[in-house]
Amino acid sequence: MLVLSSPSGAGKTSIAKALLKAEPNVVLSVSATTRAARPGEVDGKDYYFVDVARFETMKAGGEFLENARVFDNFYGTPRSHVEKQLAAGKDVLFDIDWQGTQQLRENARDDLVSVFILPPSLAELERRLRGRAQDTEDVVKKRMARASDEMSHWPEYDYIVVNRDIETSIGEVRTILAAERLKRARQIGMGDFVKGMRGA
Amino acid sequence: MLVLSSPSGAGKTSIAKALLKAEPNVVLSVSATTRAARPGEVDGKDYYFVDVARFETMKAGGEFLENARVFDNFYGTPRSHVEKQLAAGKDVLFDIDWQGTQQLRENARDDLVSVFILPPSLAELERRLRGRAQDTEDVVKKRMARASDEMSHWPEYDYIVVNRDIETSIGEVRTILAAERLKRARQIGMGDFVKGMRGA
Repeated sequence: MLVLSSPSGAGKTSIAKALLKAEPNVVLSVSATTRAARPGEVDGKDYYFVDVARFETMKAGGEFLENARVFDNFYGTPRSHVEKQLAAGKDVLFDIDWQGTQQLRENARDDLVSVFILPPSLAELERRLRGRAQDTEDVVKKRMARASDEMSHWPEYDYIVVNRDIETSIGEVRTILAAERLKRARQIGMGDFVKGMRGA
Repeated sequence: MLVLSSPSGAGKTSIAKALLKAEPNVVLSVSATTRAARPGEVDGKDYYFVDVARFETMKAGGEFLENARVFDNFYGTPRSHVEKQLAAGKDVLFDIDWQGTQQLRENARDDLVSVFILPPSLAELERRLRGRAQDTEDVVKKRMARASDEMSHWPEYDYIVVNRDIETSIGEVRTILAAERLKRARQIGMGDFVKGMRGA
């Protein structure tokens, strides 16, 4: 389980998309949300778009590994989808905030690697948020205020990537993924491999 | 501090050399040893070649971060050299066995990343050992027996690299190094960086 978190506009979603394209073993954890779909977003791929009643039912049924309210919208990670992917040997990528990450640490049995993506500066973050045509001035202001809060949680993450250049940052996240796969604890079958050699 | 360990002949020394060439910030921890210099080895670069009396004096004076006897020879890592390099911001590479790694974990205050390099098979290990013209049949047999013991310590290491192909293995160790540098705890100044942004 690989978590990417960042303040909105720091580049997390672009990095996640590039990672999914470059790494065939990585699949995205698709969240359920009550917010409206943005232009181009596909139900079941970008999000499961649900109404508030359905969301509440799923939450009450313990179907979420993590869930949160952001402004007036609800977001949640359905457990069943994640567990199915992990069982199939996939690396599951999570594009969630610090609150979601904390819940995931508590609720998921499987091991988790967390990466926090920082913008190079607040001015650059604001510039990127204003570049998103679909966000209103009010939303930009809310996001900037929230960014400061979100950023204060960087010490809770395993790795920090400062997103000065998108290609470099994608490379750094891929490096983290590659190194984590070389961790002793993740090398399934290594015990038998060594045992076989020593017994030969 | 980056430790590479492996049974003799698994390729550790070749990987270490390539790493030093490719990574300007990495310096080798030079060990003191009582064994004779092999052809081409340079005193103060490959090892500090010392006699047994000098080695014992250094050991009694607490000058070693780790030391060990291997067959009839003594090896030790002088503390002063390592501490000077770390203070200068260098990554220090250690080419030591499992016993040395255990002592290093106990004696070094600084953080340590350990990588265990395995041969793809025992047959391949033997082939590589026999390819070393300078080793006698007796030494090869001793090393093969010791390799089995050394390999049993793989679970004590953070990362495992199976050296099927030297270029791939060098790449994997460099990946580990790059990812470890992105670890939150190693990003010196990150607290001030985020504080500066949030206060701005």
